[in-house]
Amino acid sequence: MTRLHVVALVLSSVMVGLWLAPAHAGADREKLLNDPGVYGTFAAFALNDEWAKQDPATRIVRLTSLKGVVEQHREHVAIDLYLLRGLSDQADILFRIHAAELRETQEFLLDLKSSQFGKHLKTVGILHGLTKKPNYVPGFSDQMKADLKTISEPGQKPYAIVIPIRKSAEWWGMDQEKRAAMMQEHTAATLPYLKTVKRKLYHSSGLDDLDFITYFETSKLEDFHSLVLSLEKVQEFHYVRRFGHPTILGTMKSLDEVVELLAQ
Amino acid sequence: MTRLHVVALVLSSVMVGLWLAPAHAGADREKLLNDPGVYGTFAAFALNDEWAKQDPATRIVRLTSLKGVVEQHREHVAIDLYLLRGLSDQADILFRIHAAELRETQEFLLDLKSSQFGKHLKTVGILHGLTKKPNYVPGFSDQMKADLKTISEPGQKPYAIVIPIRKSAEWWGMDQEKRAAMMQEHTAATLPYLKTVKRKLYHSSGLDDLDFITYFETSKLEDFHSLVLSLEKVQEFHYVRRFGHPTILGTMKSLDEVVELLAQ
Amino acid sequence: MTRLHVVALVLSSVMVGLWLAPAHAGADREKLLNDPGVYGTFAAFALNDEWAKQDPATRIVRLTSLKGVVEQHREHVAIDLYLLRGLSDQADILFRIHAAELRETQEFLLDLKSSQFGKHLKTVGILHGLTKKPNYVPGFSDQMKADLKTISEPGQKPYAIVIPIRKSAEWWGMDQEKRAAMMQEHTAATLPYLKTVKRKLYHSSGLDDLDFITYFETSKLEDFHSLVLSLEKVQEFHYVRRFGHPTILGTMKSLDEVVELLAQ
Amino acid sequence: MTRLHVVALVLSSVMVGLWLAPAHAGADREKLLNDPGVYGTFAAFALNDEWAKQDPATRIVRLTSLKGVVEQHREHVAIDLYLLRGLSDQADILFRIHAAELRETQEFLLDLKSSQFGKHLKTVGILHGLTKKPNYVPGFSDQMKADLKTISEPGQKPYAIVIPIRKSAEWWGMDQEKRAAMMQEHTAATLPYLKTVKRKLYHSSGLDDLDFITYFETSKLEDFHSLVLSLEKVQEFHYVRRFGHPTILGTMKSLDEVVELLAQ
Amino acid sequence: MTRLHVVALVLSSVMVGLWLAPAHAGADREKLLNDPGVYGTFAAFALNDEWAKQDPATRIVRLTSLKGVVEQHREHVAIDLYLLRGLSDQADILFRIHAAELRETQEFLLDLKSSQFGKHLKTVGILHGLTKKPNYVPGFSDQMKADLKTISEPGQKPYAIVIPIRKSAEWWGMDQEKRAAMMQEHTAATLPYLKTVKRKLYHSSGLDDLDFITYFETSKLEDFHSLVLSLEKVQEFHYVRRFGHPTILGTMKSLDEVVELLAQ
Repeated sequence: MTRLHVVALVLSSVMVGLWLAPAHAGADREKLLNDPGVYGTFAAFALNDEWAKQDPATRIVRLTSLKGVVEQHREHVAIDLYLLRGLSDQADILFRIHAAELRETQEFLLDLKSSQFGKHLKTVGILHGLTKKPNYVPGFSDQMKADLKTISEPGQKPYAIVIPIRKSAEWWGMDQEKRAAMMQEHTAATLPYLKTVKRKLYHSSGLDDLDFITYFETSKLEDFHSLVLSLEKVQEFHYVRRFGHPTILGTMKSLDEVVELLAQ
Repeated sequence: MTRLHVVALVLSSVMVGLWLAPAHAGADREKLLNDPGVYGTFAAFALNDEWAKQDPATRIVRLTSLKGVVEQHREHVAIDLYLLRGLSDQADILFRIHAAELRETQEFLLDLKSSQFGKHLKTVGILHGLTKKPNYVPGFSDQMKADLKTISEPGQKPYAIVIPIRKSAEWWGMDQEKRAAMMQEHTAATLPYLKTVKRKLYHSSGLDDLDFITYFETSKLEDFHSLVLSLEKVQEFHYVRRFGHPTILGTMKSLDEVVELLAQ
Repeated sequence: MTRLHVVALVLSSVMVGLWLAPAHAGADREKLLNDPGVYGTFAAFALNDEWAKQDPATRIVRLTSLKGVVEQHREHVAIDLYLLRGLSDQADILFRIHAAELRETQEFLLDLKSSQFGKHLKTVGILHGLTKKPNYVPGFSDQMKADLKTISEPGQKPYAIVIPIRKSAEWWGMDQEKRAAMMQEHTAATLPYLKTVKRKLYHSSGLDDLDFITYFETSKLEDFHSLVLSLEKVQEFHYVRRFGHPTILGTMKSLDEVVELLAQ
Repeated sequence: MTRLHVVALVLSSVMVGLWLAPAHAGADREKLLNDPGVYGTFAAFALNDEWAKQDPATRIVRLTSLKGVVEQHREHVAIDLYLLRGLSDQADILFRIHAAELRETQEFLLDLKSSQFGKHLKTVGILHGLTKKPNYVPGFSDQMKADLKTISEPGQKPYAIVIPIRKSAEWWGMDQEKRAAMMQEHTAATLPYLKTVKRKLYHSSGLDDLDFITYFETSKLEDFHSLVLSLEKVQEFHYVRRFGHPTILGTMKSLDEVVELLAQ
Repeated sequence: MTRLHVVALVLSSVMVGLWLAPAHAGADREKLLNDPGVYGTFAAFALNDEWAKQDPATRIVRLTSLKGVVEQHREHVAIDLYLLRGLSDQADILFRIHAAELRETQEFLLDLKSSQFGKHLKTVGILHGLTKKPNYVPGFSDQMKADLKTISEPGQKPYAIVIPIRKSAEWWGMDQEKRAAMMQEHTAATLPYLKTVKRKLYHSSGLDDLDFITYFETSKLEDFHSLVLSLEKVQEFHYVRRFGHPTILGTMKSLDEVVELLAQ
C-alpha cells in the first residue's frame, strides 16, 4: 500500500506540468452519455509480454503517457476505464469511448497506440454501437412506462459486463407489432432488477458483426445473473443467434486506479 | 501538428527525385473504378511489433518505399487506402486495389511486401471480387430504375465499410424470377439512403469463400446503420448465410495522410 | 526423488520468514466450498517458453512468490490447484477459486500475475459461476431425495474434470414443471455414481458464455465416463447446446506438490 | 529486371555441380498426373519473419537448397509450384505433389523442412486426396460423354484455384442412381467452361477432413467465377456442407520463377 | 544415409550407460494393447522454431533425453510413436500411450516436457479415450461374429490415422436395439477391409470433447479411403456430429527411427 502511494506521488509530480485544468475537461460527458445518436466503442487491450519486464520507473513514465492521452482527448470524447485482468480471458483493460463521431474515437485510439504506453498494447477486440431513442417503449403500457422510470440505486457499481447480441433473420423479418409484444415481455422480465442493475443499449447493425451491444453495471453480480436468466426464459430469446462471445466482465476503475494497478 | 508538417517536409525532400510525374499516373483509374469485368481486392495489413520500435528517421525511409511502390503501380492498378487502426480489431491499414487482371494486383502486393515498409506488414486478410453489370436491375420497374439514378451527394465521405456476404444454397437454387422479385424489395429498401451512402458490389463466388463483397462510403454512419437495418428486414436476408465476419470499418485516407499518420 | 526433496528443503528455508501461521489461513474455506451465493472461478494458465529456460535456483525463487501470493489470499478466498500439463491441450495449471465477491478473486489473480512467477503465466481461459440452492430437488420424490444423500466414498479423488454447459433457448423457454421432470430423469441417471464421483454445480448465465460449469472429482475415471454416457442418454441432453469445449481434465495437487513439480 | 538476371546467373553457377541431368528427372510425371490411384497433396507454406531479414546472398544459398530438394525428389514425385503471396491470406507458396505413395510425399516434405530454405517455412495447411476413375460418368448420356471430351484450350493457364469440399450425410445416404442424376446436372453446368477452365478431382474421405479437393487452372478467372456460380445453382449444391474454407488462389510458377521472386 | 548411421552410432555410445535392460521393458505392453479398461492417449507435438537452429551435436544430446524418458516409462505404459511432419498440418510427432491409469500417462508426459528434448515441444493436441468390451457385437448375427474374427494380414502397416468422433443427442437418445441395428449395418460395411485395415476403438465421453477416438493402421491407404467412404453411406453416419477435425495422418516409426529423422 505504501508503495502504491509512492507511485501515485511520483506520477503526480511527473505529470503536474502536462495539463492544468482537468476540472473543465469532459464538459460534454453528460451529453455524450445520455443523448441518442452518440457512438459507443468498447476497445479491449492486452499488455504485451514486454510490459512485465519493464522496471517500475519505466512503467511510470509510460503510464504518464496514458494519462496524457486520455486527458487530452477527454475534451472531445467520454472515456471510461475497466480492469479486465483476472476476470476476462484475453484482455487486461477495456476502454469505453462515447463520441459524436467515430473519427474522434479513432483519433483517440491512434494517439493511445502511438504513445509510449500504447506500444505495449495488443488490440484484443473493438466493438462499435450507436445510441438511439427507445424503439419499442412508446408502445408499452402506461404502467410499464412508469415502472421503467425506476432509478437505479445510487452508489458505486463496481462490476461492468458487456454482452454483444445478434438476432436472427426471423426476428428482423417479423412485423414491428409482433416484435414490440415480445420486447414488452422481455422488458417486464427486467423490471425487478432496475434498482440494482443499470443497463445501456447500443445499436450495431452494419457497424460491427452484431446487432446490439448490451452494457450493464452492478454491485450485485448475483442480481445480474438472475436478470440474464430471466431474459433467457422469454420468447424473444428464441430469436437471439449470438449472445456473448465474448462476454466481457470487469471492474470499473478511475484512470488513477488503473495507473496505480499497472505500475505494480 | 507542427511535428507532422516537419515530417511531411522531410518526406517531400527525400522523395522528390524518385518520381517526376504523378500527374499522369493512374490514367485508367476512372475506367477501373467504373467498368464491369474489373477485379477488386481488399487487402488488410497489421504493422508488426517492430514498427513501433523504429526511430522516426527509419520510419520515414520505410514509408518512402511505400510511396514508391504505390506510385510505381498506379499506372496499372487503381489503389485506395484506408486507415483501420482504432476502428477494426486486427488490422491497421487496408488497400483496395482495382485491376484488369488479378496478376497485376499480385505484382503490386508482392512489391509492397518486398519493400522496406512491407517487411513490417502482416497480412490480416485478402478478399477478391469482380465487378459485373447489374444482374437484376434490367427487370426492375421504370420508377425504380429512375430512382436508382439518384446521385450520391458530393463531398468527402470519410467512412468506408466492407461487408462480405455468402448466400445459401436455397438462394442459388431458386429461379431467377423469384430472386429478382426479392432483389427488387431489397433495392427498394436502399432508396432512402442513395444520397448519403455510396455502394459498390463485387462478385466473389469461386474467387474467395464468399459470394459478394459489399463496399460502402458515407459521411453519415448513422444513415449507413439505418440502411443495414432496413436490409435485415427484407425477405432476401433470410438467404444470407454470412454477413460480415469480418465487418471492416475504416476511414479513407490519401497516401500522404497515411504516411504522415504512420510516421508518428 | 532425492532432488525433489532438496528442492522442498530449499523452498522451506527460503520461505520460512514470509508467513507464520498458515494454520489459521483459510478459516472460511468450508463455508466458501459449501454455501450457496459463492462465486467459483476456474482460471487455467500455461507456462511461457521462458520458464523452461530458467535455471533451478531462479525457478525456486519464482515459485516462492507463487506460494506467497496463494498464502496471502487464502484468508479471503478458497484456492485449489490442479495440474493440467500432460492431460489437457493448452494449459499447465488450473486454479479453482471460491470467493464471496468476484472482486476478491480478481485481486488474487492480479497479484498472481504481478508476482515473479506470474510473469511466466499466459492466461488460457477463465470461467466464472455462482453456487445456488438446488433448483429442482425440492420437487423430487422422497426416495430420490434420500438417494441423493448418499455420501461419496472418503479417500483421495485425484482426478478433476471441468465441463462447461450451455442450454438451448428451447430449454429455458419450457415451463419449470417440464424442466423439473427432465432434471429428475437426469438426476436418476447419476445415482449409481454418487459414491465414486463427486459433483459440484456452478450457475454462469450472464457471468460467462455459459449457463453452467459442472465440476467433478473421482478416483475412478471409468465411472466418470459411464456417468457422462448415462447423462447423454436422457431427454434433457437434447437441450444441451454446448457440452465441454473445453473439457478440462487434470489431477488435484497441493500447492507444495505443484511447486515441487514445476521446480523440475 | 537486371537485378533478377544477376540473381538467376548466380543461382545457376552455384548449383551447376549439384545435379547434372534435370532432363530425365520426372520421368513418371505424365503417369502421376493422369493415372487413377495417385495421391495428390497440397501443401501451403508461409515464409517466417526471419526470411525478410536475410541478405540477398544468404537467400540465394537457401533457395539453392530448395532447388536441390525439389530436383532430388522429382524422380519419384511430381511437384508443381504456385505463388500464393498477394492472392491468399496466410500462405506464400503452395506445392502440389503427386505420388504413388503418400510416404514419398512425406519424404519430400521432410527433406524440404530440413533444408536450409525449409527452416524459414511455416506449414499453413496440408490437404490430401486420391485420384480415381470417374464415378458417375459411365452412366451419363452418350452426348455428355462426347462433350466431356472437349479439350481445354492450349496455352498457359496462369491461375490455379484449390477448393476443398465436404458433402453432407444426406448426400452419401442417397442411392447411387439419385446421386448420378444430380451429378449429371452438375456436369452439364460445367460444359460451357471446359475449354477455358481445366479441372482435376481428388477424393479425400478419411485422408483428410474433406470429401474432395477440386483443383482448377485457368487464364480467364471470370470464366472460372461463372463456372462456380453455375455449380451453386444446381441441386447437388444443396448437399455441399463445406465449399472452400480455404479457397486457395495463386499463380502457377516454375521452380526458377519462384526462386527468382523469393530472392528479391 | 552414411550420416544417419554416424548419428545412430553416436547416439548408441552416448546412451549406453543410461539403461541396461530394454529387453524386459514393456512387459505389460501386450495386455495394455489388448485389454478393455485401458486408457489410450494421443498426444501430438510440434517442434518449436529453436529446434531447427540447434547444431547436430546438441540435437543428439537432446534426443538422447527423449530416448531416456521413453525407455524409463515403458515399464508402466505402452508408447507408440508416429511421424506426422509432412502429412499433418500443425504437428510433427504423435505419441500413443496406453496406461492402466491416466496418472501414469500424465507422469510420462510431464517427464517428457521437462526433458532437454521436451523444451522444444509445443503441445498441439491431446485426446483421451478408454478401451471397453464391444458394445453391440454380442447382439450381432453368428455369421457377422465369425466374419469379424478375420485377422488382418501380417506385415508392416506403415500408415496410421486417428479420427475423433462425436455423436448427436439423437443417437444417444435412441434405444439400444435401434442403435445396435445401425451398428450392425455399420460393421457390415467394414468387413471387406478387415484384412488390410486394422482398427481400434476408444471411448471418450466425458474424458474429452468427443465420444470416440477411432484409430486405423494400414499399408493400403486407398483401402482405408474406401472403408471411410462405405461408412459415410450407412444410416448411422447421419448421427455423427463430428468426424475428424482433426484427422491425424502419419507414419508409424520406431523410437530409433524418430531419433534418426529428427537428428537431421
